[in-house]
Amino acid sequence: MKMNHNFSNIAQSYLFSTVAKKVADYTAAHPDKKVIRLGIGDVTLPLPQVAIDAMHAAVDEQSKQETFHGYGPEQGYDFLKESIQAYYAMRDTKLELDEIFVSDGAKSDVGNILDLFDKDNTVLVPDPVYPVYVDTNVMGGRKIAYMNANESNGFLPLPDPSVKADIIYLCSPNNPTGAAYDRASLKAWVDYALANDAIILYDAAYECFVSEDVPRSIYEIEGAKDCAIEFCSFSKTAGFTGTRCGYTIVPVQLEREGMNLNKMWLRRQTTKFNGVAYIVQRGAAAIFSEEGVKQVQEHLDYYRENARILAEAMDELGIWYTGGKNSPYIWLKCPNGMESWEFFDYLLENANVVGTPGAGFGENGKNFFRLTAFGDRENTIEAVARIKKLLS
Amino acid sequence: MKMNHNFSNIAQSYLFSTVAKKVADYTAAHPDKKVIRLGIGDVTLPLPQVAIDAMHAAVDEQSKQETFHGYGPEQGYDFLKESIQAYYAMRDTKLELDEIFVSDGAKSDVGNILDLFDKDNTVLVPDPVYPVYVDTNVMGGRKIAYMNANESNGFLPLPDPSVKADIIYLCSPNNPTGAAYDRASLKAWVDYALANDAIILYDAAYECFVSEDVPRSIYEIEGAKDCAIEFCSFSKTAGFTGTRCGYTIVPVQLEREGMNLNKMWLRRQTTKFNGVAYIVQRGAAAIFSEEGVKQVQEHLDYYRENARILAEAMDELGIWYTGGKNSPYIWLKCPNGMESWEFFDYLLENANVVGTPGAGFGENGKNFFRLTAFGDRENTIEAVARIKKLLS
Repeated sequence: MKMNHNFSNIAQSYLFSTVAKKVADYTAAHPDKKVIRLGIGDVTLPLPQVAIDAMHAAVDEQSKQETFHGYGPEQGYDFLKESIQAYYAMRDTKLELDEIFVSDGAKSDVGNILDLFDKDNTVLVPDPVYPVYVDTNVMGGRKIAYMNANESNGFLPLPDPSVKADIIYLCSPNNPTGAAYDRASLKAWVDYALANDAIILYDAAYECFVSEDVPRSIYEIEGAKDCAIEFCSFSKTAGFTGTRCGYTIVPVQLEREGMNLNKMWLRRQTTKFNGVAYIVQRGAAAIFSEEGVKQVQEHLDYYRENARILAEAMDELGIWYTGGKNSPYIWLKCPNGMESWEFFDYLLENANVVGTPGAGFGENGKNFFRLTAFGDRENTIEAVARIKKLLS
Repeated sequence: MKMNHNFSNIAQSYLFSTVAKKVADYTAAHPDKKVIRLGIGDVTLPLPQVAIDAMHAAVDEQSKQETFHGYGPEQGYDFLKESIQAYYAMRDTKLELDEIFVSDGAKSDVGNILDLFDKDNTVLVPDPVYPVYVDTNVMGGRKIAYMNANESNGFLPLPDPSVKADIIYLCSPNNPTGAAYDRASLKAWVDYALANDAIILYDAAYECFVSEDVPRSIYEIEGAKDCAIEFCSFSKTAGFTGTRCGYTIVPVQLEREGMNLNKMWLRRQTTKFNGVAYIVQRGAAAIFSEEGVKQVQEHLDYYRENARILAEAMDELGIWYTGGKNSPYIWLKCPNGMESWEFFDYLLENANVVGTPGAGFGENGKNFFRLTAFGDRENTIEAVARIKKLLS
């Protein structure tokens, strides 16, 4: 019996557990202080009412023999895939239904997609980064190359022609930096991937926050269907973090070494997955209705206004940051040359505000700090007032 | 870019598509005939009312900020894990909460568990077999050895000490044969695994159908916690085939090569999975309530009675079969030396009854045929009458 020893090479992350412990220790020592948490990446608003209504109706269907749904198609019901297809069509991106795979969330698919690739590939990952991209590849024994995201490139690195990568992770708008690639930059990545026979794994989980003229989908770039797989999720769009639904686009024309990636993914999913709950798919489909789109926009506007309030404070304080416009994240440079854990303690102790130290996302994050717009309005306004008082 | 070329080695299965095409052709040519389908492995009764009520309540919780659930623990909520723990405790099997991992179904976990093992292991699989065991390993590039399940061993093969296997798949009560291992036979497998340092992947998806004195869980056997991982599902227990919830047990003491499999699986799940929908976990937990257990038993009794009716007909016809007692499947020997596809056509054309040809599950199934108890009562009785008329 031989175990997968690559598991021994996965770095243990103590980021969120250390944050939690520091906050718990502080509140225990200062029970009178009101601590405001702007560190989490989870949503706080309840599900849109259209999704609630649709799920009640679907639960009722599951209670009667005539309307009961057993095993569904592993790749998702057409009613949901057609809604996703129409959503892309609004931005002139034509998808075939067979290119859309409904899943239980982007995190699962971003990891599971690696089943399609040999171990012997070089994976290019930005630093700082969502740790799942790194850990899933280390688990599979793949070699990882890092690209520097930093203040000088606005945390939006461009391809380095001297580096030969096979698999490239791009997340835009980015977690944790909130930075979003413009069209020309994404075009540079698509051109690089095509020239190098590489595959781009494009994480679009935050596309719903785009408000400026930047792409929401890699397929808005010519040539992307020949080099990119896109992952998206209803987690941030419609508050589905605990309801679990997302989708992955694998173009039917995407081929490497004579193998068709769409057919491979279909085979992977039909073999190792049994589809998303019917009830959940009905909830997800509802958010594409006319009323659903309206309700989702209200939610997004709420978080966007929080982001604007945070960004405005950074502007007033003269603090350099990315994000806040096309993203629920503000990625700020720690003031006075502080390191991120130092700033974390300083902010917790002096303003009773919790954020996330950038060092937790990679070496290049060690002087940066993430604040999120997912808190409630009143707390966000109070946190901003405290931060401004402390830092001005 | 190197693709995973093992995908080219996965056999294409045309079993269910060929069955569907033959049935469609027959019904098109004979629109007046009432065809009865006893081929499917999907349930037909709606969800138990307790699960419906619990899911309505959970949907309502998701509609209010105060009760909203975002990201949950990847390994499942304690309220569900505690119910599963109590279910095992009823049969004197003590599980720690950390040994229980809630998932979206046994199929996902049976495939994903392979992330823990090196490619270089020999996998022992019965023939006939649920094709997922084979396909997931071929995808991962592993060598497969088959053990013969056949009439002479009642489709319950015992370990062959001359064969050295590292990973062993056991499914009991079995899909497709319906045969269930007794205590002594499972003990022989546990002893073999311990002697060979092997791991048993034990699929208990049909344990709820056990009615005789055979184990429902591998952990009823001494030593199993040192060599076995168990997969289970609410699909057949409570009709969750389209609602998606199951669980996997990885003992905390299970180690190989100095690596702890429980910790590895936790790391795999927290990295590549984001938990099951809160709403669905509430529905699953409800079936363990006093009223839930009663409703589930009513469902199971309905299917069991169908199985009994089918088995009784086989007895009357003097047809050799396995299953029917601890399983919703009847695995019968095709009469008059017919091969399974030949019998399929014969039964479709002369009795208008659809079953599943055993050849679809492996070489050893080529003279066998699967009927399922998941149809409705009236149709099952009518199918039996037609089969008896045709074959007596």
